Amino acid sequence: MKNILIIGAGLSSSTLIEYLLRNSVNFDWKITVADMSEETARLKVNNHENARPIKFDILDETQRNHEISNADMVISMLPAIMHPLVAKACVKYRKHMVTASYVSEEIKAMDKDVKEAGLIFLNEIGVDPGIDHMSTMQVLEEIKTQGGVMHSFKSYTGGLVAPKYDNNPWNYKFTWNPRNVVLAGQAAAKFLFEGKYKYVPYHKLFERTVRMNILGYGEFEGYFNRDSLKYRSIYGLNDVRTMVRGTLRRTGFCRSWNIFVQLGMTDDTYIIEDSENMTYRDFTNTYLKYEEDITVEEKLAKYLNFNEESHTMYKLRWLGLFENQKIGLRRATPAQILQHLLEKKLQLDSDATDMIVMQHQFGYNLDNKSKLKTSSLVVEGRDSVHTAMSITVGTPVAIATKLILSNVITTPGVQLPVSKEIYEPVLAELKLYGVNFIEEQVK
Amino acid sequence: MKNILIIGAGLSSSTLIEYLLRNSVNFDWKITVADMSEETARLKVNNHENARPIKFDILDETQRNHEISNADMVISMLPAIMHPLVAKACVKYRKHMVTASYVSEEIKAMDKDVKEAGLIFLNEIGVDPGIDHMSTMQVLEEIKTQGGVMHSFKSYTGGLVAPKYDNNPWNYKFTWNPRNVVLAGQAAAKFLFEGKYKYVPYHKLFERTVRMNILGYGEFEGYFNRDSLKYRSIYGLNDVRTMVRGTLRRTGFCRSWNIFVQLGMTDDTYIIEDSENMTYRDFTNTYLKYEEDITVEEKLAKYLNFNEESHTMYKLRWLGLFENQKIGLRRATPAQILQHLLEKKLQLDSDATDMIVMQHQFGYNLDNKSKLKTSSLVVEGRDSVHTAMSITVGTPVAIATKLILSNVITTPGVQLPVSKEIYEPVLAELKLYGVNFIEEQVK
Repeated sequence: MKNILIIGAGLSSSTLIEYLLRNSVNFDWKITVADMSEETARLKVNNHENARPIKFDILDETQRNHEISNADMVISMLPAIMHPLVAKACVKYRKHMVTASYVSEEIKAMDKDVKEAGLIFLNEIGVDPGIDHMSTMQVLEEIKTQGGVMHSFKSYTGGLVAPKYDNNPWNYKFTWNPRNVVLAGQAAAKFLFEGKYKYVPYHKLFERTVRMNILGYGEFEGYFNRDSLKYRSIYGLNDVRTMVRGTLRRTGFCRSWNIFVQLGMTDDTYIIEDSENMTYRDFTNTYLKYEEDITVEEKLAKYLNFNEESHTMYKLRWLGLFENQKIGLRRATPAQILQHLLEKKLQLDSDATDMIVMQHQFGYNLDNKSKLKTSSLVVEGRDSVHTAMSITVGTPVAIATKLILSNVITTPGVQLPVSKEIYEPVLAELKLYGVNFIEEQVK
Repeated sequence: MKNILIIGAGLSSSTLIEYLLRNSVNFDWKITVADMSEETARLKVNNHENARPIKFDILDETQRNHEISNADMVISMLPAIMHPLVAKACVKYRKHMVTASYVSEEIKAMDKDVKEAGLIFLNEIGVDPGIDHMSTMQVLEEIKTQGGVMHSFKSYTGGLVAPKYDNNPWNYKFTWNPRNVVLAGQAAAKFLFEGKYKYVPYHKLFERTVRMNILGYGEFEGYFNRDSLKYRSIYGLNDVRTMVRGTLRRTGFCRSWNIFVQLGMTDDTYIIEDSENMTYRDFTNTYLKYEEDITVEEKLAKYLNFNEESHTMYKLRWLGLFENQKIGLRRATPAQILQHLLEKKLQLDSDATDMIVMQHQFGYNLDNKSKLKTSSLVVEGRDSVHTAMSITVGTPVAIATKLILSNVITTPGVQLPVSKEIYEPVLAELKLYGVNFIEEQVK
């Protein structure tokens, strides 16, 4: 009998908890689901005989030590900033740990201790980061085996609304933390293109997009992620001349989002005076020049040099950016006001579901010819609980947990899923759950 | 015999030290000039009999307490961040203090203690802040006395090269800390215009300038300062409908500076990869799209939509932005690289001097008519030591010091020079030193 402790039973834990409970009978697992809310934990385990839902406070050291010392393996689905608390206790009590978050410098620094204790701390085994790493490494290995030499790697991922529920002019709904969406990209993006380092400041980010078609799902556009360069060493691509990572949206989104960026509405560093009594129309006007005898719509189109009859203006009108409706938020930043407006309009309906889209583009030389191969994935959510996000984050975490407990993954240390030992069995099983990459050779 | 302690003998202290030494015989003052470099302190006092130049370390508590306890009055010309160290010792040993810096929250919080000790801590008595406050308050008092009611206040200040030495296409040379010039404006500007709050993000700041002619010195342009609103309460202008403060440059400067902002070259938050071996041309190219068969100049003009034959392009060429010359700076940020390039070309020649330009614009109602009055100042430096900056910062500090020691300024507390007791005698004496505002009634 093995004890698994899952800390955090939020949205993205649903699929993870179900997988582990389903497998618990065969594998003889006892699963503790620990959450700030006992109610949430209880709902997620649905009275399963092998489950123990508990109220849990990560900052309570006694409880933390007690639960971790009683487990054989700990899965932290907490916000990334909390992982070190879990990790330290895992080292102390010699327990394996799995997370879906980016590995922090603090966790990386534990590598020696983790190895000495013979433990596995597996990080970045969600979707992005996670499935992106594994699917990339698998194709890179394939190309290498054929004798190909990589010269260019581009990779794009997006969380979007599923096509069936895509019924607004932005072709976008929040499927993830809205605050992170509003603040996304607020630092210069850096990447490598044809041997040249390229930097794009935030105010140009949504103007310099690229477009692509993916698996019959139509056209998408990608904007650059903050730092594409660090993946060169992680993927063993130190000699490539092009290295780009980006985020996907439906075509047309970035052009319109750019209006918010250009106006300054995504700024989270200052408070708008009297935001409570202002209307959304006032809020928009606050970023425009003072001019009489001209509407806010006309001023905006003139200021940012776009057509008043364009689809972009339609999207802004649809959102309510010109409405004489009170904002009602006290002492709010521009980003908070924008988020408040967007949340009213871009919320995923309770019966709707989402979609994860990913495409890697591999440029390589083989037999003196330059070749291009894509590897693409689309996962749609099954329903409003089994969202694409929950499936693609939770399933690889669950599979990896099983593989560690079954001694299939055995290499100790602070790990990312970039070694064959990890990505091969995880990707193989992910296919059974509809997480299936399609490779295409581009002519 | 009174002891005056001046801490900091840098560039802007020259005029201050000379003024006090010149008056020291009549007033029976002994003046200690304390600087990190004894050499600097010694050069500044020129063997004057009443001067005592010393090597001084503000972080040495023993020395700090010793010197401050022996003084009757302390002038801190240190970087603003150091003032609290001085202020605490001044409270402890009951000494007056004068600075030319913005008053910090920490110093403001000492008001009660300062008052109880019967001390005067006078801040913001340089040029900007300083002369701007005093000259504004004087005209406001005048308008009020006539029965006028203010509705609009705008104020602009700039430190520029004197016309005689203005011989480059930017019409600009560094007369102040170059790093501050490169980083200037990197936060949203906020102001009030015709009753509406207006916010301008950094990437729009240098596009939304206003132009004005000042005292026969030709045309200038102003860009908005970060926060114009806080001066409403300080100046007693809570009911005005327009409140704007800005920084002056020669016309055409902002349009060209905006190219750096648009590219992202003023960013100080990340390191450019391999900056050491890059050329300035590479650096420029790093912000442009990858395109073959087109020059960096052509790409830039296309990307930012300006004419390749424009004066802006000439200014950029003149600076060396397209030169195949190595940068040679290790692990440098974009802002550091840009500063390095600018410093080579925009340095004030050793025999050249600078100019301070200021204009306040007062809009008010009087006898049922709307009136506009300007109050303007231009001060040119006398020579490379007696720069306009040194004169306009040092002289009001020196005069205020004299007035405190002579019991003309007597109101205790943490003060700004906005009361008649301070601004009236200081402005009167400043006229003798060529700091003379010209009022004009605009038709």
